[in-house]
Amino acid sequence: MSTVRSTLPDTTRKIVGEALQGALVDLVDLSLVAKQTHWNVVGPRFRSIHLQLDDVVATARAHSDTVAERSAAVGVPPDGRAGTVAAGSGIAKVPDGWLRDGDAVRTMVDALGAVIVRTRERLDEVGPVDSVSEDVLIQITRDLEKHHWMFQAENAG
Amino acid sequence: MSTVRSTLPDTTRKIVGEALQGALVDLVDLSLVAKQTHWNVVGPRFRSIHLQLDDVVATARAHSDTVAERSAAVGVPPDGRAGTVAAGSGIAKVPDGWLRDGDAVRTMVDALGAVIVRTRERLDEVGPVDSVSEDVLIQITRDLEKHHWMFQAENAG
Amino acid sequence: MSTVRSTLPDTTRKIVGEALQGALVDLVDLSLVAKQTHWNVVGPRFRSIHLQLDDVVATARAHSDTVAERSAAVGVPPDGRAGTVAAGSGIAKVPDGWLRDGDAVRTMVDALGAVIVRTRERLDEVGPVDSVSEDVLIQITRDLEKHHWMFQAENAG
Amino acid sequence: MSTVRSTLPDTTRKIVGEALQGALVDLVDLSLVAKQTHWNVVGPRFRSIHLQLDDVVATARAHSDTVAERSAAVGVPPDGRAGTVAAGSGIAKVPDGWLRDGDAVRTMVDALGAVIVRTRERLDEVGPVDSVSEDVLIQITRDLEKHHWMFQAENAG
Amino acid sequence: MSTVRSTLPDTTRKIVGEALQGALVDLVDLSLVAKQTHWNVVGPRFRSIHLQLDDVVATARAHSDTVAERSAAVGVPPDGRAGTVAAGSGIAKVPDGWLRDGDAVRTMVDALGAVIVRTRERLDEVGPVDSVSEDVLIQITRDLEKHHWMFQAENAG
Amino acid sequence: MSTVRSTLPDTTRKIVGEALQGALVDLVDLSLVAKQTHWNVVGPRFRSIHLQLDDVVATARAHSDTVAERSAAVGVPPDGRAGTVAAGSGIAKVPDGWLRDGDAVRTMVDALGAVIVRTRERLDEVGPVDSVSEDVLIQITRDLEKHHWMFQAENAG
Amino acid sequence: MSTVRSTLPDTTRKIVGEALQGALVDLVDLSLVAKQTHWNVVGPRFRSIHLQLDDVVATARAHSDTVAERSAAVGVPPDGRAGTVAAGSGIAKVPDGWLRDGDAVRTMVDALGAVIVRTRERLDEVGPVDSVSEDVLIQITRDLEKHHWMFQAENAG
Amino acid sequence: MSTVRSTLPDTTRKIVGEALQGALVDLVDLSLVAKQTHWNVVGPRFRSIHLQLDDVVATARAHSDTVAERSAAVGVPPDGRAGTVAAGSGIAKVPDGWLRDGDAVRTMVDALGAVIVRTRERLDEVGPVDSVSEDVLIQITRDLEKHHWMFQAENAG
Amino acid sequence: MSTVRSTLPDTTRKIVGEALQGALVDLVDLSLVAKQTHWNVVGPRFRSIHLQLDDVVATARAHSDTVAERSAAVGVPPDGRAGTVAAGSGIAKVPDGWLRDGDAVRTMVDALGAVIVRTRERLDEVGPVDSVSEDVLIQITRDLEKHHWMFQAENAG
Amino acid sequence: MSTVRSTLPDTTRKIVGEALQGALVDLVDLSLVAKQTHWNVVGPRFRSIHLQLDDVVATARAHSDTVAERSAAVGVPPDGRAGTVAAGSGIAKVPDGWLRDGDAVRTMVDALGAVIVRTRERLDEVGPVDSVSEDVLIQITRDLEKHHWMFQAENAG
Amino acid sequence: MSTVRSTLPDTTRKIVGEALQGALVDLVDLSLVAKQTHWNVVGPRFRSIHLQLDDVVATARAHSDTVAERSAAVGVPPDGRAGTVAAGSGIAKVPDGWLRDGDAVRTMVDALGAVIVRTRERLDEVGPVDSVSEDVLIQITRDLEKHHWMFQAENAG
Amino acid sequence: MSTVRSTLPDTTRKIVGEALQGALVDLVDLSLVAKQTHWNVVGPRFRSIHLQLDDVVATARAHSDTVAERSAAVGVPPDGRAGTVAAGSGIAKVPDGWLRDGDAVRTMVDALGAVIVRTRERLDEVGPVDSVSEDVLIQITRDLEKHHWMFQAENAG
Repeated sequence: MSTVRSTLPDTTRKIVGEALQGALVDLVDLSLVAKQTHWNVVGPRFRSIHLQLDDVVATARAHSDTVAERSAAVGVPPDGRAGTVAAGSGIAKVPDGWLRDGDAVRTMVDALGAVIVRTRERLDEVGPVDSVSEDVLIQITRDLEKHHWMFQAENAG
Repeated sequence: MSTVRSTLPDTTRKIVGEALQGALVDLVDLSLVAKQTHWNVVGPRFRSIHLQLDDVVATARAHSDTVAERSAAVGVPPDGRAGTVAAGSGIAKVPDGWLRDGDAVRTMVDALGAVIVRTRERLDEVGPVDSVSEDVLIQITRDLEKHHWMFQAENAG
Repeated sequence: MSTVRSTLPDTTRKIVGEALQGALVDLVDLSLVAKQTHWNVVGPRFRSIHLQLDDVVATARAHSDTVAERSAAVGVPPDGRAGTVAAGSGIAKVPDGWLRDGDAVRTMVDALGAVIVRTRERLDEVGPVDSVSEDVLIQITRDLEKHHWMFQAENAG
Repeated sequence: MSTVRSTLPDTTRKIVGEALQGALVDLVDLSLVAKQTHWNVVGPRFRSIHLQLDDVVATARAHSDTVAERSAAVGVPPDGRAGTVAAGSGIAKVPDGWLRDGDAVRTMVDALGAVIVRTRERLDEVGPVDSVSEDVLIQITRDLEKHHWMFQAENAG
Repeated sequence: MSTVRSTLPDTTRKIVGEALQGALVDLVDLSLVAKQTHWNVVGPRFRSIHLQLDDVVATARAHSDTVAERSAAVGVPPDGRAGTVAAGSGIAKVPDGWLRDGDAVRTMVDALGAVIVRTRERLDEVGPVDSVSEDVLIQITRDLEKHHWMFQAENAG
Repeated sequence: MSTVRSTLPDTTRKIVGEALQGALVDLVDLSLVAKQTHWNVVGPRFRSIHLQLDDVVATARAHSDTVAERSAAVGVPPDGRAGTVAAGSGIAKVPDGWLRDGDAVRTMVDALGAVIVRTRERLDEVGPVDSVSEDVLIQITRDLEKHHWMFQAENAG
Repeated sequence: MSTVRSTLPDTTRKIVGEALQGALVDLVDLSLVAKQTHWNVVGPRFRSIHLQLDDVVATARAHSDTVAERSAAVGVPPDGRAGTVAAGSGIAKVPDGWLRDGDAVRTMVDALGAVIVRTRERLDEVGPVDSVSEDVLIQITRDLEKHHWMFQAENAG
Repeated sequence: MSTVRSTLPDTTRKIVGEALQGALVDLVDLSLVAKQTHWNVVGPRFRSIHLQLDDVVATARAHSDTVAERSAAVGVPPDGRAGTVAAGSGIAKVPDGWLRDGDAVRTMVDALGAVIVRTRERLDEVGPVDSVSEDVLIQITRDLEKHHWMFQAENAG
Repeated sequence: MSTVRSTLPDTTRKIVGEALQGALVDLVDLSLVAKQTHWNVVGPRFRSIHLQLDDVVATARAHSDTVAERSAAVGVPPDGRAGTVAAGSGIAKVPDGWLRDGDAVRTMVDALGAVIVRTRERLDEVGPVDSVSEDVLIQITRDLEKHHWMFQAENAG
Repeated sequence: MSTVRSTLPDTTRKIVGEALQGALVDLVDLSLVAKQTHWNVVGPRFRSIHLQLDDVVATARAHSDTVAERSAAVGVPPDGRAGTVAAGSGIAKVPDGWLRDGDAVRTMVDALGAVIVRTRERLDEVGPVDSVSEDVLIQITRDLEKHHWMFQAENAG
Repeated sequence: MSTVRSTLPDTTRKIVGEALQGALVDLVDLSLVAKQTHWNVVGPRFRSIHLQLDDVVATARAHSDTVAERSAAVGVPPDGRAGTVAAGSGIAKVPDGWLRDGDAVRTMVDALGAVIVRTRERLDEVGPVDSVSEDVLIQITRDLEKHHWMFQAENAG
Repeated sequence: MSTVRSTLPDTTRKIVGEALQGALVDLVDLSLVAKQTHWNVVGPRFRSIHLQLDDVVATARAHSDTVAERSAAVGVPPDGRAGTVAAGSGIAKVPDGWLRDGDAVRTMVDALGAVIVRTRERLDEVGPVDSVSEDVLIQITRDLEKHHWMFQAENAG
């Protein structure tokens, strides 16, 4: 079957494709972890954290779509299936059951921190070979670091 | 830690909680499968199927949120983590890589069909004990059966 | 030609299909009768009734679409053609020509009353076999009974 | 009962009233035929045709309202009842049951073609006596001929 | 001072300019008369007529702007000053003070009727020489005749 | 428990607090009385009065919120509980059951009239000591007197 | 005076009418209690709880309107007057004056809990005789139980 | 015929009624003068002044409606007919024909200046007897003085 | 290849097709010329003219789409390619580089003037044979003559 | 250079101009202080306070614009430059660096309190000489006292 | 005539100016080619491709505006005239007349492919000297490569 | 007090933090200077420049917020207080009092030019160490250079 031809040379496409696939897995998992926490958080900060987590979900969903479609655009079919996400995510497994608000915030600080580190590494790999995909990863990092600050500020003091 | 008390008696809460947890897993996976297909579909019906799949994603995401929050409302913490979804979904594993449009449609007919059968079984269990949760499951079935018709119509003839 | 397979067993599909087809015919006719009255009403209450009738048109059009698509979703092709509607509607034929406002209100009280009686009968048939289609008919009844009250209130006193 | 006096002389009013009544019947039937096809179309072009048909429904409903109210404005009570439509429409009867997409397109090409021919004849009758009603019929023809092209383009090649 | 040159020949511009100036005066006065009635109407139909009159105001204001700018576009400076309107309007003077609803409706039937007759005469003069300005007058007539019907219907029976 | 300190001196705060508390009780009751009438009105003016009453409800709800929050802002906790409203409202008790449209209008003329008189008295007390709270009461009076005119106009003639 | 005829038989209408009247009283009081708390809450969670309470007000107002109009639709005039609400509400009297945030949350957990218990009892009475009114009560229960969870989560831990 | 009773004593109503009637005439004329200038302005600042004048029209129309309805609310039927406006306006007659942009600006500075002086005089009369009508006149003055500054700034330098 | 059949007879279709093709070329070029001027205008009226030119672009783009689709609707494939536009436009070539505001206005007065003359000629050809296409050309002329006035007014004085 | 002439006499203009200039400086500084706190707040109430502070920013920005343009309207050029604000603000200097949420709230209670005291003094000066500018200051005080209550409530208990 | 001074040094401005001018020509032509295809496409995928092409038009128009204004911002007057576009575009000439859907898709794959190659070359030239203009070209490439994938996917299989 | 940890190494954080702090001061001052000019500009281009300046205010406010929150996100508390801005801004002090339009434009050309030079220097420092913050500064430069062109174009010729 004839499919989508890349405008990138083969080695570049391989580097970019792997970076985007990694970002996709992290972002899909981030959206699931943030929803899980959104549903299970309890404590005096419930409403505030519950709403803040939906902002993370919106960010993660929007960027996972962008990343997957960028992968398709460079000729690499993206893989965002549950099994792939469960196996490959860079976010540590989160506990099930009700979660106190302070723990919920810490969970998100850790999850966002882990994804940021990996995205910055991908940025270093992709930057030199495809400035267009680099730009996609820069936008993601920018939004994740903003959420990271907000959850840190929430637990600071 | 004191948490959320159910307005349902214990046995009812157990039945309802399990049904909602099962529905949550199926709906989260449906949203991931539909996105996966949305990104990988190719063929002369690409644009049409690509858009139709995002309608399924929107339906699955909205209902998964409703189901999870209904579970919390009856006192049962929901579990929508990637690992739980990968292990418990009623949808057969879908292939990775580019997917021809006719195959994409068949994938969705099967995925929707599987979730509908399981949701109707949950409806039978929940109906006699909690008409409020039953109503949630009825809305889901109604929307899924509409999508099911549309994808069947797409491949009919 | 392969078509849409029902998720309902055959006997259920037949009961549900007939009920939905009956509702479709009544609702399409209700939209035509309300428009006819909308255009021909005269008298000191003209503007008020003229606008109220368009609310009925909107309700009837929205529900006729829902009912027809629910029929397709259970595997039964709906029939909303003019001849079918003219032959099968449960609403008594309305006169042509200008219609005084009080008569217009009475026309609608009767038309709505007739459709409500038939929809409640369909509810009794469908309820025991398909709670999803039952839910569709409940929403219709609810909206029609609201309009019925409003037109009765209009002519009361 | 005193009613609506025309600003048109009697013979003009008769010509205009008949043309508008004819247009009303055709347009109401066009809306019903397009909805019927919208619900029953199947095949690989399902979603595309399904949506295109709702554009026709919107056009036909908007223009039928305009035509009926223009008739009232010239002092002639319009008649858009199901029986009148079934008896007087210029559109050939369409089959019931599922309809393949190519057949659905042909059905609409024929239906639109028939209404266009009749509307252009009415234009010839009305133009010389009432430029205001002529303008109403010109807008209708313009929109129907646009839909006609689109459905022809759909089956061309 | 150099000003706006007409794309119309001189005799045409004179005919068109006079017709548009006449329409402007009538439409500005119609907006003032409808507002006057909007503020002073009393009686059991108060709210309904009060709102209906604002629909006339909106129509009259929109068309007076179109007519004045069309006049400028053909090179004739429009005159919509209070004194010009008071002196040249085709609408009979309306009484001051509170106005019963039935009288308010009759006032509007007469005012609209007077403007329609004059606009149709202008249509006859302008049509043969400038189809663009004719189109402007056709839209005005169409909207005024619709309002005329509605106010007649209001007092009919 | 430390609470909200007033920027007003004590005697002023007492005068203002009592005026605002009185206004709050009247406005909450006005919203309940208007809703009660909205639901129970019958007669040929049903739709018109039904809608007009919801405009009063919107006004009364918006102003009751403003008044209560102004009270909090000057350091006086507001009391809008059902018992307080039932005991302290300046509106005469309205009958239960269906209410003919003319009676509904008279009910509102009386209710609005009673609240206006009391609000103008509060204006006289508050004006000399707090121009900010005075401004709040002026806006209320302005809106209530507009509704008062409209309901009077409705029953005039 | 002729009024609104019920489509329900007399005994059914009586059962349904009483259930709806009870729900109306509870919902109107819930809206007043939530507003009272919205205005008087103080403490570090002020803004969060203040906003959350307005969500309850919106829910209670929307459902009270639906319940009252459903009552009218089945031929029973609803009673939502202040005195009726003060006398018949199922919510315990709340204190006046400033209210600490934790106490505000507890007040709402109790108020919502009390209304949910009574609404579920009404559901049991109405379900067997009128599935349309049952559906109204199911939607109310669903929304109240969601708010109930959220306020419980807020004070948990 | 029984009409609208004032909540103001007779002497107050007379003072307020005359002030509002004077403001109405000025504001209606201001809207006509601004429209006249909007249509006839020419010169290098055409577009800018053309748009700025429509802001004045919007202000004048909104305030004339408020003033007229305030007059009705205090029991005095307003008079905004063309003849009344032409005879009683405080704005000097403006020339007809094309108007250079600098002259257009001067026309508006003068017109606004004249209306402001008269409105401030009315403010002095109304203030001591009705703070509600005073508030209406304050808002008008505030908006007119803002427009006055902007047109002065336009011609300054 | 079977294509789009015209509802017009052959000679009419030829006349109409040529007129629409000519209008298409002029309108596409008008949109390019207006954008070119939008980007290159300089001088004290920069912002005003810059914005005014985008209004012309919007008009030209909307009408070019209408004209091209009308051509397709009468069975004549439209040609709006760059080479066709460059070769066939009725607008004189405009200079490149920065353009002073007065020159920009003159450029547009000339460009609009040229297109208006040609559109009026097409109107004369099309009017007698197809009133539907005539209506399309009337709307275009109306909008172009309005822009023509505005740019003339801009440079007048 | 000729500039903006005041409609106020000289002594009045001086009093009003100074009051508005003082208010402008306070409001611009309030917007900067609120933004500073918005960016630097940390602690468990981070998100809630962060959002609440942007409400203050919006209020301060809107009112500073109104005050500055009111100053221009009375003929006094406003001065809102950074140096003028830094030198003349009534708000005590706030610390730099991260700020705990409780301290952030106290900062705002103090800042709002200081501006309210000064605005009320300006109200006393302006009220007797210009009721239009007085009205501007009343709206500001009203909004600031509402924010003041909310921040006090936040730290109460 | 003094014009726009660049913030870039001369050699940089020359490199950037040429790259942006090239991009402008390609993007204007892309918008014309996509519209041409939008109007002339026929075949079973008509509606889907017709709509997809308008997405390309929207992208090309938005980016051509950005590119031209970026050119002006760096002091180089842009040239987007029809003749310049016809002579300098990197897109191969497309045929006139009706175009089958598969050919339409191939036309767009080729046109997008050609513009992408040239834009990536410009990116290499501009990147080292002006990161701001580079960012503009990155956004264009990103959007074009997304469309490129979608049209390839459409013809794949 | 524990605060926000940076994802950047210490030396990078220092470079980035200083660059962002500098940008913040410049952007806050730009917003104040643009507002100052917005209020004080006079002359024949008043309205045009007055509106253009508010576009600059919107840009400066949006970017100052982004820059401050980016600073927080990298662990450096931003400082946007009036005193800091007055002391550190790169924009030369602007005069107080009325400002002729040509001078206003020159003021903005200079202010924007100064900030652009400094932002490009920051870009050179930040680019090599943090591509995410670099992207923030690129967007700012892009928008400022666009405004810079527009104000230059305004005074050119």
